[in-house]
Amino acid sequence: MLADTDADGFVHVGDRFDDELRYLTRFSGPDRPYAFVYTGSEATATLCAPRLFHEQAQTEFIDRASDTTHRQVRTEQVGEPAGIRAVSTLQAAGISDGTILVPQQIPHDAALYLEQAGYELRSTDAVTVQRQQKTPAEIGCLRCVQQVTAAGMAQAEKILAESTEKNGVLRWSGAALTTEVLRRQINAILAQDGVQPAGNTVIGAGSSAADLHFTGVEEINAGETVLIDISPRGPHGYYGDMTRTFVVEGDGGWERRAYVAVEAALDAALRQLAPGVDAATVHEEAAAEIGAYGFPMVAEEGEIGFTHGTGHGVGLSLHEPPILSRETPLESGMVVTVEPGVYDPDRGGVRLEELVLITAAEPGYEILAPYPRSITPTHSR
Amino acid sequence: MLADTDADGFVHVGDRFDDELRYLTRFSGPDRPYAFVYTGSEATATLCAPRLFHEQAQTEFIDRASDTTHRQVRTEQVGEPAGIRAVSTLQAAGISDGTILVPQQIPHDAALYLEQAGYELRSTDAVTVQRQQKTPAEIGCLRCVQQVTAAGMAQAEKILAESTEKNGVLRWSGAALTTEVLRRQINAILAQDGVQPAGNTVIGAGSSAADLHFTGVEEINAGETVLIDISPRGPHGYYGDMTRTFVVEGDGGWERRAYVAVEAALDAALRQLAPGVDAATVHEEAAAEIGAYGFPMVAEEGEIGFTHGTGHGVGLSLHEPPILSRETPLESGMVVTVEPGVYDPDRGGVRLEELVLITAAEPGYEILAPYPRSITPTHSR
Repeated sequence: MLADTDADGFVHVGDRFDDELRYLTRFSGPDRPYAFVYTGSEATATLCAPRLFHEQAQTEFIDRASDTTHRQVRTEQVGEPAGIRAVSTLQAAGISDGTILVPQQIPHDAALYLEQAGYELRSTDAVTVQRQQKTPAEIGCLRCVQQVTAAGMAQAEKILAESTEKNGVLRWSGAALTTEVLRRQINAILAQDGVQPAGNTVIGAGSSAADLHFTGVEEINAGETVLIDISPRGPHGYYGDMTRTFVVEGDGGWERRAYVAVEAALDAALRQLAPGVDAATVHEEAAAEIGAYGFPMVAEEGEIGFTHGTGHGVGLSLHEPPILSRETPLESGMVVTVEPGVYDPDRGGVRLEELVLITAAEPGYEILAPYPRSITPTHSR
Repeated sequence: MLADTDADGFVHVGDRFDDELRYLTRFSGPDRPYAFVYTGSEATATLCAPRLFHEQAQTEFIDRASDTTHRQVRTEQVGEPAGIRAVSTLQAAGISDGTILVPQQIPHDAALYLEQAGYELRSTDAVTVQRQQKTPAEIGCLRCVQQVTAAGMAQAEKILAESTEKNGVLRWSGAALTTEVLRRQINAILAQDGVQPAGNTVIGAGSSAADLHFTGVEEINAGETVLIDISPRGPHGYYGDMTRTFVVEGDGGWERRAYVAVEAALDAALRQLAPGVDAATVHEEAAAEIGAYGFPMVAEEGEIGFTHGTGHGVGLSLHEPPILSRETPLESGMVVTVEPGVYDPDRGGVRLEELVLITAAEPGYEILAPYPRSITPTHSR
């Protein structure tokens, strides 16, 4: 990364919630800022370990490193601000001035410490770009967490299949089946299988299925769309992402038409996937298919139709580049969602989502952890 | 907050992982940056809503607001960088120059957009300070999540009580009982009860109990300390935090001595708690008690003794001020952990942790969601 520039070093500062720092360090860290420093002169990567985390930093940053970069955990000045420790690390490497690359979201105080010490800062998106193409180890992590995501979906489908109708409302295990009951049952399976539900289990029923981020509580009625979007985080920090939509005792009306349109759009989008293809064309194909079935192919939030983009990259962030509605070539090793949807705030919402790896081999993609599609929930998956 | 200064506004930018922004907005938001702007001239709080999140921003930021500040969700320039939208919001409020307060961790690019637009930035810790004292609504959230934390602990204790020994190793439900099995069982209960395990369930057994952040996999042996630290996050973003240490078929040796010392330190620390007391004295009392039982009262990570501070504030962050080893007066409404521990890398670790609310009423504190203490696990809690 540094090799292509005339910069003297790279610095980032953040806490455990900064995915870029997680990518650079593999350190799952604490909830307070720590620093990563890369110096090109000695090709050395340094993690300034936070207080009480030396052992974990050693294990995660050095012992489990998969590349050959020279790595060190620095414990000098534990307790000082991370920006100050980054400055000392640069100085210890003999870099007392010059240009330092930083991600644009580096905390402002860390940037000021670097500037006050005499360095010139230049922002870089090199790490963000590099993260798009996954290594085999990363693909393994994504595959594993997506398998657990599928197990969560199977639990949801089983509960819907077991539920019974009473006065139009679904009941399960002796009580009304709500979006919250379903969410908790899914999350318990995810936790039991060793991944974090991560607050991302979105379940809508009927009109709330048209709300892209509904996390409230609603009774689930017979005949309405039940949209289930599960995106847990695995032990190494990688996310899964899968959406299915079910209808219990549907009457074959709006929800069936929307489902057929969305499934056609999903298949059309998948057929586009291959290295070299412009990501924007994947979205255009999906939208065109939805339009062909008579639904508005471009719509704003709260309107009827296809209200969002067709997909996004998934890795240590749940949403990361590439964005499938933007012009950018797909590359082998990218992992993206494909997730067309049709929504009507008065009727419901249908979305189907696969997580796929772009491959050099035919047909140009592989669905990670395939899971059946069916509008009617089935007992055994 | 602005009233006490001659500043013209306050700006913060961050994503859903920024707890300060969550505190200011109550918006659970997406994983990309959005802006909060407060302008004193009209006493108006503005949330610059991200694309596709208008509805959720309206609900969480405005409909559920508990104060009387004038609030608005701004949708102009959706898709532009959050820093640029903050500038436009200030300009729309008639503030075209002057001093803007920002938290020191505001992203560097947002700070640059503000400076380039002609504003002078001054960092403030006013929000961090204000967050220390919890409102009744916040205390309610903390109480609820801590009750679920206790349910998770009860599940762990039950499993340990049910486990049997075979060749020195504990077995449960037909298989070896590992730290990972126990962690997953706890996390499943937490998820089922509607809170996020949040990657914070730390379980150590024997020597790994001396590792403050052990999340690896180890068999659990009879006679060794099993340290269980559970810190889930509730639906409103508030954390619980509780630690217990158990020993199955202990021989009354080191682990019993350490347990007695830690329990005495916990009680000594609790007795100190009251509004007006210096937080540092709470730590000093705990440490002195540990010393009185013959264990080193000051130790570094990896050494024998009390290797960390006695506690920290808990709220929308798992670790926030006040820090109990620093000189700062405790105040009514603060919620802090009290968690002394004794560790020996060759033998194990014992820690006991309560989450308490500082109260004006006697005895000066209240344990949120009390849970029994016992070195020997019991079946029914």
